[in-house]
Amino acid sequence: MNRIITIGREFGSGGRELGRRLSEELGIAYYDQEIVSEIARRTELSEQYVQSVVEHQPSFSFPIHIGRSFYPAPSPVLDQSMTVYQEQSRIITEMAQKSDCVIVGRCGDYILREYEPFRMFVYADMDSKMKRCREKAPEDEKMTDRELKQHILGIDKKRAKYYEFYTGHRWGDKLNFDLCINTSRTVIKEIVPAVAKLFQG
Amino acid sequence: MNRIITIGREFGSGGRELGRRLSEELGIAYYDQEIVSEIARRTELSEQYVQSVVEHQPSFSFPIHIGRSFYPAPSPVLDQSMTVYQEQSRIITEMAQKSDCVIVGRCGDYILREYEPFRMFVYADMDSKMKRCREKAPEDEKMTDRELKQHILGIDKKRAKYYEFYTGHRWGDKLNFDLCINTSRTVIKEIVPAVAKLFQG
Repeated sequence: MNRIITIGREFGSGGRELGRRLSEELGIAYYDQEIVSEIARRTELSEQYVQSVVEHQPSFSFPIHIGRSFYPAPSPVLDQSMTVYQEQSRIITEMAQKSDCVIVGRCGDYILREYEPFRMFVYADMDSKMKRCREKAPEDEKMTDRELKQHILGIDKKRAKYYEFYTGHRWGDKLNFDLCINTSRTVIKEIVPAVAKLFQG
Repeated sequence: MNRIITIGREFGSGGRELGRRLSEELGIAYYDQEIVSEIARRTELSEQYVQSVVEHQPSFSFPIHIGRSFYPAPSPVLDQSMTVYQEQSRIITEMAQKSDCVIVGRCGDYILREYEPFRMFVYADMDSKMKRCREKAPEDEKMTDRELKQHILGIDKKRAKYYEFYTGHRWGDKLNFDLCINTSRTVIKEIVPAVAKLFQG
């Protein structure tokens, strides 16, 4: 069976960087934005739309038809969210079947549970997440600290909602992961060789 | 400054084994039961009693003197718990000042916070904790699965209470640790070289 590593992460924690560097160190495939592009190609929805659905917006906005039925009729928006999720599940499974790989986000840990992936979660305290975001932001970025904090919390809230909707598990619960790494006091580049060693016997 | 590694752990998760093996791999000191023995020596309380206080029983049983004072009078039992905790803090600090070391349990992460220790937490799912306990139990051990589970939950409940009483933090909250390791699917011996590599540059 291929060696599959899934990485869940808080926004601003450097989980993507860790995933990318880890895949380079191990010489295996890395999937992140590629998944969105592939969903967009297969569903013929725009990449931007798929991005907004994937990890961000399972739609709970059922239209309610009072007087017609006790149960709400299926919503076309929810239908489309489900289509995207199903396509995503298929693509992630195909990727995992093809070769060893690192998959970032997108409920990979849950979708691939039968493949017994090594499940990592990357997180950090708010100060270091804000610092990391500032370093990566374009120069004309004008958010105040308060706005940036709200932005980070908002993205993670959506990730949590998405994850919980599709998996039934609490997002970031350490019991659902094999290894949780706090990057607050860490230079990611420096810990990658140690993390890689877990897979190098 | 010395390299200090603290390890918090759920009962049955193999955190002690991981700590001991890690200290061997790194060639540094390992403190666990030694702390209890040293407290007993210094306070002239029995080792058994110190063991029952350390990590297990901060006493909340204030005697209440209605009509004399709004605030409860200090309890001799609480006094003794505090004495043990203070002595423990002193000993752990001395150990950390002496040389690089691994310290298991006993709020080491909190007591040594000014030394910026590398803080690990070791945990596992209930099935694997039960399995590990069975393997280590004496042959005449007769607990049913239900009793064993209650025993494990009971010890961790006391650890949580103790930790929260002295630190004000939630026990096992991943944000208070640099690395959390789930040993459910792991052979501890096999991951130690990778964990050690974090400290070997």
